Amino acid sequence: MSNIESIRQHTLVALEYVGTAAFAVSGVWGAIRKRMDIVGICVCGFLAAFGGGTLRDVLIDRRPFFWVEHQEVLLGILLLCVACATFFKQHHLESSEKLLSIPDALGLGLFCTTGLHLSWSMGQPPAVAIMMGVITGTFGGVLRDMVCNEIPSLFRDHRPYALCALLGAIVYALLASLELPEWVPLAACTIATTGTRLVTLWLDLKLPSVDFE
Amino acid sequence: MSNIESIRQHTLVALEYVGTAAFAVSGVWGAIRKRMDIVGICVCGFLAAFGGGTLRDVLIDRRPFFWVEHQEVLLGILLLCVACATFFKQHHLESSEKLLSIPDALGLGLFCTTGLHLSWSMGQPPAVAIMMGVITGTFGGVLRDMVCNEIPSLFRDHRPYALCALLGAIVYALLASLELPEWVPLAACTIATTGTRLVTLWLDLKLPSVDFE
Amino acid sequence: MSNIESIRQHTLVALEYVGTAAFAVSGVWGAIRKRMDIVGICVCGFLAAFGGGTLRDVLIDRRPFFWVEHQEVLLGILLLCVACATFFKQHHLESSEKLLSIPDALGLGLFCTTGLHLSWSMGQPPAVAIMMGVITGTFGGVLRDMVCNEIPSLFRDHRPYALCALLGAIVYALLASLELPEWVPLAACTIATTGTRLVTLWLDLKLPSVDFE
Repeated sequence: MSNIESIRQHTLVALEYVGTAAFAVSGVWGAIRKRMDIVGICVCGFLAAFGGGTLRDVLIDRRPFFWVEHQEVLLGILLLCVACATFFKQHHLESSEKLLSIPDALGLGLFCTTGLHLSWSMGQPPAVAIMMGVITGTFGGVLRDMVCNEIPSLFRDHRPYALCALLGAIVYALLASLELPEWVPLAACTIATTGTRLVTLWLDLKLPSVDFE
Repeated sequence: MSNIESIRQHTLVALEYVGTAAFAVSGVWGAIRKRMDIVGICVCGFLAAFGGGTLRDVLIDRRPFFWVEHQEVLLGILLLCVACATFFKQHHLESSEKLLSIPDALGLGLFCTTGLHLSWSMGQPPAVAIMMGVITGTFGGVLRDMVCNEIPSLFRDHRPYALCALLGAIVYALLASLELPEWVPLAACTIATTGTRLVTLWLDLKLPSVDFE
Repeated sequence: MSNIESIRQHTLVALEYVGTAAFAVSGVWGAIRKRMDIVGICVCGFLAAFGGGTLRDVLIDRRPFFWVEHQEVLLGILLLCVACATFFKQHHLESSEKLLSIPDALGLGLFCTTGLHLSWSMGQPPAVAIMMGVITGTFGGVLRDMVCNEIPSLFRDHRPYALCALLGAIVYALLASLELPEWVPLAACTIATTGTRLVTLWLDLKLPSVDFE
């Protein structure tokens, strides 16, 4: 492995840790808002961080899970949840919600890309691989909200989130069918997903509503 | 394959599509009532249509899923969800709830039969195979309701639904242990399930309540 | 198998049935409080009794499930649910909630031990095996509460439950790395889990709250 390649690898892993941590924090947050105890906080953090990838692995029957192979990440996330809960107990947290949206968008892009890449490499049909990418990126939050006894915000937020991942995934699918180096569709998918998410947040775009009256 | 056999096969597949579509519409409906956006509508439609069979496949560890093998059905259902949402936005939908109950009963019967047949052919114990049939027929609706943050109507409707599937499944189990041609228990299970469901709806039968006071 | 060994085996199986039954009754209870019909009651009872072990088996990709191998236990639990529902309909049930906490603590200890032992024997990393033990002991109740459309009491009860299982699991992990006979960590895990649960209930211990105001 060349020096540049090694730097790229390390950057990617570092970015993925940032995304995972952002997802975990969103879980801790949801749990605290529901006045859960420390067990609920850790489970919500875990589900938000690893739920999407684990659901994907159950669907495509892949073992071992990421957090089984890397138990140090599992322990790290649990420690992060406890630390977050302690921190949130002592500080007001209103101000931090917006701060989270950038690493969260990063997590969305990276998770979508890795989930899609995995499914694509296994030779699954394009529509299914795209769906697996979107599920990996978004269903951690869905499981978090279900456990918090709420309608998942993914489903009623009217802000593009899953659609950003879908766009990125389609970009990947188009580029992957050309004869390009492997990193091109990977980078394009992450950038398209994270980029559209950030832009739509910045422009405060909303999906049309289907309410009838 | 003879001509008659071929007609029977095609009829069966056509009926199963009708049932799947009816289930998907019930999901779209639930999502709209909860004011979800287009992502929520598609996920609810997908869960209602494929959730029962997918849960069964996860439980019996069978891959690929139906919607992975037939990605055209997956895409078709998603298109149907979008079309439905657009249609419902423009029309009142009160009148259509009753119309749905006939294809829904058909879906229940056909899904229960195929789920049971699959599990039975794998040599699972009768009680388990019967349970798998009932799960295939009914748990799409359970997952739809859970995602909509409601107690599943299957569990508190007090109208026979799972019990119709259970009756059909027991009919299958009894006939399958005799030396009859394969289609006899299959047809009997579908007819018994769909038939009892329609009759109990028509007679407005209710299960006794277990409320205490 | 010696005579004493055989008695120990039978005692263990008998205890496990008691624990499973206690879990099932807690499910029936939750369902009745939500005014579910007989289908909901049976599903809740089943989820509470077998949900934790089934989730663990899905996560570690183990088949057949316990209730597939032992369909007589499956049928027994369903009969128990129907019997319970009938009994609760005729009697007041306020008085029985406290009675349940002893077999429930027993179920927690035994399920945690068997889940952990299974995962440990498969050579999974310690942190993962410990987690699987805790999941086996506690997630039946989580699934029960999710189906009842409540925030799982495991997550907001502020009474040690998962933490008792965690303590027992850590005791197991420490003892299992020494060269002791197999039954020592098994017994220690069960006793530590069930014991701490009963003691904390008796002392009415509560976890510190993370509420901010």
